[in-house]
Amino acid sequence: MQRSSVTFQPEGKRVEATIDQTLFDAAGKLGVDIQSLCGGRGICGKCRVIVRSGTHSLSHTSDAEERFLSESEIRTNFRLACQAIVKGLDTIVVEVPRQSRIGQQRLLLKGLERPVQLMPSVRRLSVSLKKPSLLDVESDAGRLLRALRKKSGKELRIDYEALKTIPHAVRGGNWAVTAITWMDRELISVKPEKQSENLYGMAVDIGTTKIAAYLLNLDTGEISATVSMMNPQIPYGEDVISRISYIMRDEKNLEKMNRIVISGINELIDEACKKAGIDPKDIYDMIVVGNTAMHHIFLGVSPKYVSLSPYPAVVQSSLDVKARDLGVRMNCGAYVHVFPAIAGFVGADAVADALATGIYESEEMTMLVDIGTNTEIILGNKEKLLSCSCASGPAFEGAHIKHGMRAATGAIEHIWIDPRTIEVGYSTIGNVKPSGLCGSAIVDAVAQFLKTGMIAPEGNFQRSETERLRRNENKPEFVIAWSDESSTGDDIVVTQGDIREVQLAKAAIYTGAAILMKRMKVDFRDIKKVFIAGAFGNYVDPQSARTIGMFPDVPIQNVQFVGNTAGSGARMALLSTQMRRVAEEVARRIEYIELGADPDFHKEFLNATYFPHKETERFPNVMRLMEKD
Amino acid sequence: MQRSSVTFQPEGKRVEATIDQTLFDAAGKLGVDIQSLCGGRGICGKCRVIVRSGTHSLSHTSDAEERFLSESEIRTNFRLACQAIVKGLDTIVVEVPRQSRIGQQRLLLKGLERPVQLMPSVRRLSVSLKKPSLLDVESDAGRLLRALRKKSGKELRIDYEALKTIPHAVRGGNWAVTAITWMDRELISVKPEKQSENLYGMAVDIGTTKIAAYLLNLDTGEISATVSMMNPQIPYGEDVISRISYIMRDEKNLEKMNRIVISGINELIDEACKKAGIDPKDIYDMIVVGNTAMHHIFLGVSPKYVSLSPYPAVVQSSLDVKARDLGVRMNCGAYVHVFPAIAGFVGADAVADALATGIYESEEMTMLVDIGTNTEIILGNKEKLLSCSCASGPAFEGAHIKHGMRAATGAIEHIWIDPRTIEVGYSTIGNVKPSGLCGSAIVDAVAQFLKTGMIAPEGNFQRSETERLRRNENKPEFVIAWSDESSTGDDIVVTQGDIREVQLAKAAIYTGAAILMKRMKVDFRDIKKVFIAGAFGNYVDPQSARTIGMFPDVPIQNVQFVGNTAGSGARMALLSTQMRRVAEEVARRIEYIELGADPDFHKEFLNATYFPHKETERFPNVMRLMEKD
Repeated sequence: MQRSSVTFQPEGKRVEATIDQTLFDAAGKLGVDIQSLCGGRGICGKCRVIVRSGTHSLSHTSDAEERFLSESEIRTNFRLACQAIVKGLDTIVVEVPRQSRIGQQRLLLKGLERPVQLMPSVRRLSVSLKKPSLLDVESDAGRLLRALRKKSGKELRIDYEALKTIPHAVRGGNWAVTAITWMDRELISVKPEKQSENLYGMAVDIGTTKIAAYLLNLDTGEISATVSMMNPQIPYGEDVISRISYIMRDEKNLEKMNRIVISGINELIDEACKKAGIDPKDIYDMIVVGNTAMHHIFLGVSPKYVSLSPYPAVVQSSLDVKARDLGVRMNCGAYVHVFPAIAGFVGADAVADALATGIYESEEMTMLVDIGTNTEIILGNKEKLLSCSCASGPAFEGAHIKHGMRAATGAIEHIWIDPRTIEVGYSTIGNVKPSGLCGSAIVDAVAQFLKTGMIAPEGNFQRSETERLRRNENKPEFVIAWSDESSTGDDIVVTQGDIREVQLAKAAIYTGAAILMKRMKVDFRDIKKVFIAGAFGNYVDPQSARTIGMFPDVPIQNVQFVGNTAGSGARMALLSTQMRRVAEEVARRIEYIELGADPDFHKEFLNATYFPHKETERFPNVMRLMEKD
Repeated sequence: MQRSSVTFQPEGKRVEATIDQTLFDAAGKLGVDIQSLCGGRGICGKCRVIVRSGTHSLSHTSDAEERFLSESEIRTNFRLACQAIVKGLDTIVVEVPRQSRIGQQRLLLKGLERPVQLMPSVRRLSVSLKKPSLLDVESDAGRLLRALRKKSGKELRIDYEALKTIPHAVRGGNWAVTAITWMDRELISVKPEKQSENLYGMAVDIGTTKIAAYLLNLDTGEISATVSMMNPQIPYGEDVISRISYIMRDEKNLEKMNRIVISGINELIDEACKKAGIDPKDIYDMIVVGNTAMHHIFLGVSPKYVSLSPYPAVVQSSLDVKARDLGVRMNCGAYVHVFPAIAGFVGADAVADALATGIYESEEMTMLVDIGTNTEIILGNKEKLLSCSCASGPAFEGAHIKHGMRAATGAIEHIWIDPRTIEVGYSTIGNVKPSGLCGSAIVDAVAQFLKTGMIAPEGNFQRSETERLRRNENKPEFVIAWSDESSTGDDIVVTQGDIREVQLAKAAIYTGAAILMKRMKVDFRDIKKVFIAGAFGNYVDPQSARTIGMFPDVPIQNVQFVGNTAGSGARMALLSTQMRRVAEEVARRIEYIELGADPDFHKEFLNATYFPHKETERFPNVMRLMEKD
């Protein structure tokens, strides 16, 4: 009977919470939409809620709350959900304010894709068998394998679950059956011939933030359904490091996180099958890509050591695992093909990016930048490929930014500042009143500050002839939207601290690019093409991104935003086993550079914190445009 | 609330039975020891019980009961458990009389075995890995595989469950680890080197009546524990045909029977591990042998069609199935090697027999007879091998025999009759008062009847100068033990019907032998050795068996009782992968003869029903001895 009832508004979801449980955990159980970057450890301050009833049944204000909440907020019953612990039996009502909600995220599902020749891992073989007789008593399985060998020339083994269906299938089809084989090596399913349907496969891209899945008809190569969801692991940390920390806290958490992502994928399977009007049993193949942490958690393999220097992965070659061993609910004889990774945090998603952009067979020196909380960069051409991973942090996803938010309804996505009047214009996602800034807006803001001279190349605010630039607790901040324009009733600002976050993030990315160029012995003029991949990349203004020095200074027409190429690469490999071999080969060919081990790392990083860079000669195009304005 | 309480005496077990459930089903739920040959279909009459209380809450006497029970039995509340249906809410007390209990069965575990060179499928490879560094960030798995490749020269794949343990194992052992590999193909387990223990394997022989399991130390080849149990499927039918019928009655019954046998094996694993002081996780390999029906049910594969002409098996080549797919609780990366079968009912146990006896490399013409409810015969030498299966029925196991019982405590096992006085001597298992006749006693009885002229070669009783030979309901029967000697208080008799059962059984076996000899173009004089395998074979008197014409008339010194060679062959294959290859090759080499398809079958069978045979010239040794007596 040690339970309290907690209701979360405005969703109105109610849950029984036990004594000593936090409001954050209670919300997690219900799937209540509540932001957190740190996974409930009291260090991000994002999970603010207002307790409307039952305050005396909760723990007292914690140190963390005193750090993140103002005195007036504490007086008006603001709490951090992860710090407020249920202590008494009561009816507690909690409001989750708009800023603390994640909202309907805009999920990027499209990506650059190159055509492939249809050559799926599974194929259909129809054979007619001689009925057994007293003079020919070969077993059902032996009879079937013999006929298949005769037809295909291949020696097949039989999946154990498929074996059990053989006697019914051969008789149900009056000895005419269709066998589904995998990689010409294994018989994974047998059906009476007349029941034979299309074969389907699924490509799954497990992102830190979202999971996207594509159901493909393997007979035509067409996409039958596209589905996606927020990664259900988000309540346990918004970035991979928070999730790994969560897993390291308790041995059972790995299994918990694994089950959460597998259940999510099973939901996506059901949703896609419903859309396409097929049965999950008709899905005979699956490709999974994801960054190293998501990849490991999907496999139920500990990501702990990937987060500790020297960052070794547990496994980086591709794997074929029975769907039933993973708990993925598709055809029960089917395999899941887990993409190979390169090394450390340069994961299977980067390999899929390489596949989708074709960088590995490019004639010209090409750079591929997949921007995310971890940014992976690949530089090279068909001769040589180098890669690295940059801990760029979640600033471009709106985290660690005072009014940062995801690219969801109400987020400001683009900003422009009049260089003379310093008047600000902006656009929001969904054309509603703004409630915060998403990554592309932050990049715009910094680029505009730089162009208008509001900030110096070192990043500090300097020009002051506008009331928008003010001091708050003695720290400068710039007002993008006044309280009367915003949906939250507060001014939406960019602080000096926010600019530092952007500096660190872009410096991390540029440093990676610079060290790869150095190792490749090329400079920015040699780079003929830059691919920017990832959800963030698709909304950011390329001029702004180049202005702040996020990537080398190439002509804007040579910068191509390619979207979710991880998903595209996965789809290509789903349709073609040839592409899987290429992926494996490319993963081995791409050399991994551990940035931290490069002697120039610290110098490069420091110089890259300048906008666009301390060595301005590296950004002649940007400098020319700045002078022009 | 539709439940009655049923208590079974003398065990005192109580269960809640639902309306319309039979007493037999209620007993099955409790695991009450109650005999049945037909699996509860009312056709064997073996499941007699006495209702001590609550008779009015049971269904009325059925037709089947009127057939099997005498009027006085019906009056004194005897019922067949499978016919008495719970109809009212009451407290029902049921006594299971001694004759209806299976009792503690004598299980034959030893068998002829040939020494093999130790060459198990699993082996231990210890390697030291270089610790990862910023300049060497290969994944844990890649690092391990590379070291193993260097040491063994083999390219290994990794079991999915083993993969998950790698990061902990390599660090737990400070980068010195022991890998367990399977068939030089797959890494199935990884441990810190210092935790490395002996490797164990288990050989399992699933008999229709008993399951025997042998835990072997794969480092020394020694048996660490021997365990056995009655096959827990027995309540669903004593012979394979009853069990197959039970499975055919309802689709769910296959899964039920499969789970029952797997649970039984898991119990044996636990018991053996406790005896040997090891953990089930230390068991890295398992060999399973059994007749075709047991083999199929173990795999969860329908045995339905094996029981219908032309009797095709679902699978007859050997299989390696992950223990976790089968639900067998041993090391979770381990495989179960299921032995190959020959064809039809000549199953994996016959292949194991061949392995243990070495018949496949014999210089001399040899016959191997594995006597059971189905009897398998192999005839040949290193040049050529033929096999067949004979539906000999369960008579030699005491079934279909009026006072027949298994070889359990209280069973008469040997009988001798004074040819002049017709006085009977007998010995019982456990030296207690007799309660019935086991197979060896029945064979003795018939042989003695024949020698003393009590029966004619056609099998009918003929001599009548003894009060032991009498008529009961107008049918002749011979009293072996008088009521005052028996533990049941009834006379123990051999009826004319019992002799007919023996005639059919021995004719079935001899016909198989005869047709194989014909196909091999040899006669009884060419056969230099007869191996008799199976539990029954070990207790039967060879003279008696030959006298009734159960097998060809070879000199008694050339008949060798080899015991449970199915178990021995399984142990040999557990210790040596070379033996597995031999088994596979032998299974393919042994030609299967479908007796029913031979034009001489009916004539041969009819002639073989005579004792010892209609063509007495085929039994010169027996005839000579008969004349001498």
